Amino acid sequence: MDEFDMIDYYFKKKTSTRTDVIMGIGDDGALLLTPKDQLLVVSVDTLVEGVHFISTANAYELGYKTLAVNLSDLAAMGAEPAWFTLALTMPSVNQPWLEDFSAGLFELANQFNMQLVGGDTTRGALTITIQVHGFVPRQQVLRRAGAQVGDKIYVSGFLGDAGLGLKVLTDNYSLSAESKQYVLQRLNMPTPKIALGILLREFASSAIDISDGLLADLGHLISSSQVGAEIKVPQLPLSFALQTISHREAVELALTAGDDYEICFTVSPHQEEKMLSRLKQAQIHSTCIGKITAGAGIKLLDYTFEMHRLGFQHF
Amino acid sequence: MDEFDMIDYYFKKKTSTRTDVIMGIGDDGALLLTPKDQLLVVSVDTLVEGVHFISTANAYELGYKTLAVNLSDLAAMGAEPAWFTLALTMPSVNQPWLEDFSAGLFELANQFNMQLVGGDTTRGALTITIQVHGFVPRQQVLRRAGAQVGDKIYVSGFLGDAGLGLKVLTDNYSLSAESKQYVLQRLNMPTPKIALGILLREFASSAIDISDGLLADLGHLISSSQVGAEIKVPQLPLSFALQTISHREAVELALTAGDDYEICFTVSPHQEEKMLSRLKQAQIHSTCIGKITAGAGIKLLDYTFEMHRLGFQHF
Repeated sequence: MDEFDMIDYYFKKKTSTRTDVIMGIGDDGALLLTPKDQLLVVSVDTLVEGVHFISTANAYELGYKTLAVNLSDLAAMGAEPAWFTLALTMPSVNQPWLEDFSAGLFELANQFNMQLVGGDTTRGALTITIQVHGFVPRQQVLRRAGAQVGDKIYVSGFLGDAGLGLKVLTDNYSLSAESKQYVLQRLNMPTPKIALGILLREFASSAIDISDGLLADLGHLISSSQVGAEIKVPQLPLSFALQTISHREAVELALTAGDDYEICFTVSPHQEEKMLSRLKQAQIHSTCIGKITAGAGIKLLDYTFEMHRLGFQHF
Repeated sequence: MDEFDMIDYYFKKKTSTRTDVIMGIGDDGALLLTPKDQLLVVSVDTLVEGVHFISTANAYELGYKTLAVNLSDLAAMGAEPAWFTLALTMPSVNQPWLEDFSAGLFELANQFNMQLVGGDTTRGALTITIQVHGFVPRQQVLRRAGAQVGDKIYVSGFLGDAGLGLKVLTDNYSLSAESKQYVLQRLNMPTPKIALGILLREFASSAIDISDGLLADLGHLISSSQVGAEIKVPQLPLSFALQTISHREAVELALTAGDDYEICFTVSPHQEEKMLSRLKQAQIHSTCIGKITAGAGIKLLDYTFEMHRLGFQHF
């Protein structure tokens, strides 16, 4: 099977089609109609075997996760997803792997009516780069900058689950079957918070997705906003799975472990009530974990311990 | 130097800035203003060490070429370049390499007023993925489909130079110093034909860039257009360097070697004269090499030999 047959069989035929795609895969480039009065949002992420996933990773989950990681960036900007491209480098044409990988990829893509509009397949060490494109009205974009002193700090969902999932995989960490299934699902098939991002367009003063750990990513947010933050450690949202392990370890995971792909956002106190009512209506879970302060840096309240690590460094 | 310092130092600070970039590097995604009444054109290409370039490849040339390869796709669509992203996977942070790579990359990017708006740096085998974004008026886009029976087939520049450059590198092929310098320049720092693509918006009935060799790429063009082609082999444009090697070998390189990044395009006979006058005015070199025919496949006129290879297969 040559490159062109492969693209056709595993990717071109499986993607959904959108009316704003004048030409998708099949020419030197894709031709795309952009909506008037909205900004184009672009984000790109690479996953590398041996760095971001292990060589025995399930291909279906990997296809799903690589897109989810990118969609999480769109969510954090308040954007609605539209198109994506895939640059897939792999050691050989492994058809069962491609079958599973593309199934996982399109499982998520089709949920959000996203069309694959281009890509490149090359030979080499397994490396997957996805670029996503979405749209957001210019006046409603969410950024890292924008948090004001006095704003409340929220996070969606639960923190630290993916970090615990990684411990299960790499340290053979012992957990109940139910907890284990839950944290591995959170690690391998994270849910990008697109609906939340769109809802927050009206309310949030700033937002970032939590890919490298709460402290690292909140650190970027406050540094972009030129403010400080106080986190009330007992308020960190811990899932039932994290509540079964030592509290100290659970808190450390919630603060520092990456790969959760929840959204950390800020809201001014006078917008808070309305936002909470809208979140409740949409059945989106979120928790207030602290507030924005004058100054710089993150202060942890009601808890002290030595940090073993601060986010994920790529090098 | 951590990931964020590196991005800042080697990439963010060196890129030119465009007024249509509301937010470039530094948030979860880039925020971009798209022009009304034009289509967005997107193309992505990956270069892998050991497959697309050798491990001793000059980093400056590599940065230049990776972008050039992508710009060539925009040229073939008639698009004007705007933005690009870079997904860079590398075994370690090699600062002299990054210095040279980014210098070559921005040498070309700044020529076309392109802004780097996002990226990802990861650890792994050296793999470079660039995605380019450009614009073209909807009624003037160049596609592979559109060639009509009777249209003339043209190519820009000269063919086979990069293929000869590769022979010099890999087979220690003997050439004069002048020829050697010329073909290596053509291989390592190809010139994307952006001005030609924009000029052809008014004239060409179809176009494709020659990345995999004339026969392979013209093959895609006629297959998309559902026509056939006749190539007059003696009319293939051969550079002074190709004229110094055996004619048979020169013709084979011109027909089958990849990496030239010239444009192959078709024009109806009644538009031909006006187009040639405009090309002359713009001092762009092009050659008529045949015509579009009814049927399918490519017929080579005035030459017969066995083909050793047909384009470049990635697997």
